[in-house]
Amino acid sequence: MKGNASGFAFTILKEDKESRARLGVIKTRRGYIDTPYFVPVATLASVRALGSDDLNVLGLQCVLANTYHLHLRPGDELIKKLSGLHRFMSFDRPIFSDSGGFQAFSLGCGREDNINKIGGVFSRRRTTEDNIGKKENLTKITDRGISFKSFYDGTWQFLDAKSSMQIQSNLGSDIIMAFDECTSPLSDYDYTKEAMKRTHEWAGRSLKHHDIRQAIYGIIQGGWFEDLRAESTEFIKSLPFDGMAIGGSLGNCKRDMHQVLDWVVPQLDERPRHLLGIGEVDDIFECVERGIDTFDCVFPTRVARRGGVFISPESGGRPDNKFRINIKSAQFKDDGTPIDPDCRCPTCRRYIRAYLRHLYLANELSYFRLASMHNLHFMQKLMQKIRESIKNGTFMELKEKWLE
Amino acid sequence: MKGNASGFAFTILKEDKESRARLGVIKTRRGYIDTPYFVPVATLASVRALGSDDLNVLGLQCVLANTYHLHLRPGDELIKKLSGLHRFMSFDRPIFSDSGGFQAFSLGCGREDNINKIGGVFSRRRTTEDNIGKKENLTKITDRGISFKSFYDGTWQFLDAKSSMQIQSNLGSDIIMAFDECTSPLSDYDYTKEAMKRTHEWAGRSLKHHDIRQAIYGIIQGGWFEDLRAESTEFIKSLPFDGMAIGGSLGNCKRDMHQVLDWVVPQLDERPRHLLGIGEVDDIFECVERGIDTFDCVFPTRVARRGGVFISPESGGRPDNKFRINIKSAQFKDDGTPIDPDCRCPTCRRYIRAYLRHLYLANELSYFRLASMHNLHFMQKLMQKIRESIKNGTFMELKEKWLE
Repeated sequence: MKGNASGFAFTILKEDKESRARLGVIKTRRGYIDTPYFVPVATLASVRALGSDDLNVLGLQCVLANTYHLHLRPGDELIKKLSGLHRFMSFDRPIFSDSGGFQAFSLGCGREDNINKIGGVFSRRRTTEDNIGKKENLTKITDRGISFKSFYDGTWQFLDAKSSMQIQSNLGSDIIMAFDECTSPLSDYDYTKEAMKRTHEWAGRSLKHHDIRQAIYGIIQGGWFEDLRAESTEFIKSLPFDGMAIGGSLGNCKRDMHQVLDWVVPQLDERPRHLLGIGEVDDIFECVERGIDTFDCVFPTRVARRGGVFISPESGGRPDNKFRINIKSAQFKDDGTPIDPDCRCPTCRRYIRAYLRHLYLANELSYFRLASMHNLHFMQKLMQKIRESIKNGTFMELKEKWLE
Repeated sequence: MKGNASGFAFTILKEDKESRARLGVIKTRRGYIDTPYFVPVATLASVRALGSDDLNVLGLQCVLANTYHLHLRPGDELIKKLSGLHRFMSFDRPIFSDSGGFQAFSLGCGREDNINKIGGVFSRRRTTEDNIGKKENLTKITDRGISFKSFYDGTWQFLDAKSSMQIQSNLGSDIIMAFDECTSPLSDYDYTKEAMKRTHEWAGRSLKHHDIRQAIYGIIQGGWFEDLRAESTEFIKSLPFDGMAIGGSLGNCKRDMHQVLDWVVPQLDERPRHLLGIGEVDDIFECVERGIDTFDCVFPTRVARRGGVFISPESGGRPDNKFRINIKSAQFKDDGTPIDPDCRCPTCRRYIRAYLRHLYLANELSYFRLASMHNLHFMQKLMQKIRESIKNGTFMELKEKWLE
């Protein structure tokens, strides 16, 4: 148990014998987070389509908000003036915030290179005649920081370690991230090394400028290069961060991502480990096995809005259907059963597939909330099962049952 | 108290001495409705943006679903197969359904004539060079029934008294409406009379074909012509309907609507009186005063989605601001108070104006639900205050306080 001025502490309750999986609990002033935990994303101070009353009904222990987006709108100074993010969005449990570096990547270089993040790893977007040459790089990176064109109003903005810390302090989140530069899988060795050096420099500045009432995680970079990942892990680990986050690029496919974790995690100490922007159901198993404690990803709510709703193995969920059905499918037209008959979420307790399909096809706003509730409940239950399996020494059995 | 095979009954508890306002209770097999009552609209089996869990939290006693829309999608036969509308949308309280006649008007003739319903009365839509001559009449009306082009897929459909009754039986709603033809304020005397005659013919057929497990309301037509309204009232009243609905056209302005009610209501007997498609806050007072028991309107949820949220007189609501603020207004940018400090709705108990404004401007889906919840709660409380004032003999005082 490590404690500090932020009230942050992490306790490992059990380590799995057959893998690097571990059961733990993160303590913050605003409550506990049982790990491994999947952290839903509240980009603009709202988990999309849900109210914070819904978050409480789902029993969510924490969320992650985006520094980049909230800085641009409604503005972190406004949020500070209104007593911080917890009061602003009416959520009194722990909130993570990211550093803003990832959006500078994804809305800048990633945009220029047609890079998108699909299924936990980066891949090139399909290039068509329509978008060739039309993407503008909205980001300029120097050793000082990142200049970027606002996604909303086109104004040029500047973010560096100090301002990222100031913004996160204004938000008043409980667990913040050091300012970093995320690289693309297309970045070569030399560029990735240069970006890593910047990230290390910014890590020190982030520690220096951060609000000591907030716990802070350092971000390990180094792309898909073994020596750079080793160097970054060693460096970030040497600094007095409360936790370690692993940032992208994680390579070009899921196997690459597993490789990165196999390079990084064995070098780490007891501090909690967060994997940024991951993941899908299979990712969760693979990464918990490799020693990850927390994850954040928009995936469950995003896929819900597009019709994808999760089902457990008992209801036919398998790796090849990505543990989900598409509610718009004609086969559910007159289906009088819940999304997942084994599920006890607020949506499955009330509604049948045929109704949800109808709402989806009619573009009824209520659909988005009901499907998002289900998917987040599904992730909550999945993490609960994973924690129980680690406790019982059956994690690898559970993984095999799901991913066989 | 009148009872029948549908289990429907209406009791008048008190009549106001200074007006035609009355306090009553509608009894159905699925529960009671205290009158005067404002019935929220669940067009496609969902009160837009809300789940039925929200409807229960709001304490709604009933909703109104649209026969036309549900017939087209997902289809009333599908709903019947899935055990009816209550099970389909997971709402176990009374449901009204309309006859489909109004949509045939509003999506047909109303479309052709650029007629729109604004603030409870019909008015011409602004004609621009862009839309002149581009609107196609999607409706053909004969004595047999109404042919119309589906709003969704362009196929021609036919609706008559018998099929309207069959559809409403398939839906399994508790209170249904007789099939009618709604006229436009542009319809002349001869056409309005012809349409009224058809409505009367169809009223008889509706009674003959309706499912006797459902209570049925007759619809009084006659446009803005005193003798036609008198004739229609006399005729509909002579039939064994469970209640009386008053249909459009109600003229060209609110004063015309009041005039229609002053022609019609004094002729009516004790049966409950429903005013279709009304209304705004001032309409509610004016029409309760004139003896209306129930109302239905999409207005509170529609205006919420556009940023309009209700405030009571205590918080500055007045006829000239239509008892609402527009949440997107810059003046609420850093407003740390709830929409209405006097309101105890789920939204006002949790959220501040600045947050709701942020959600609205960011087009966050959660906004639509939170604003709709507030506006429906506001209408619920308004009706409760009106019922209490009738009970206490202070209705006209309350009206004056709100509308002065």
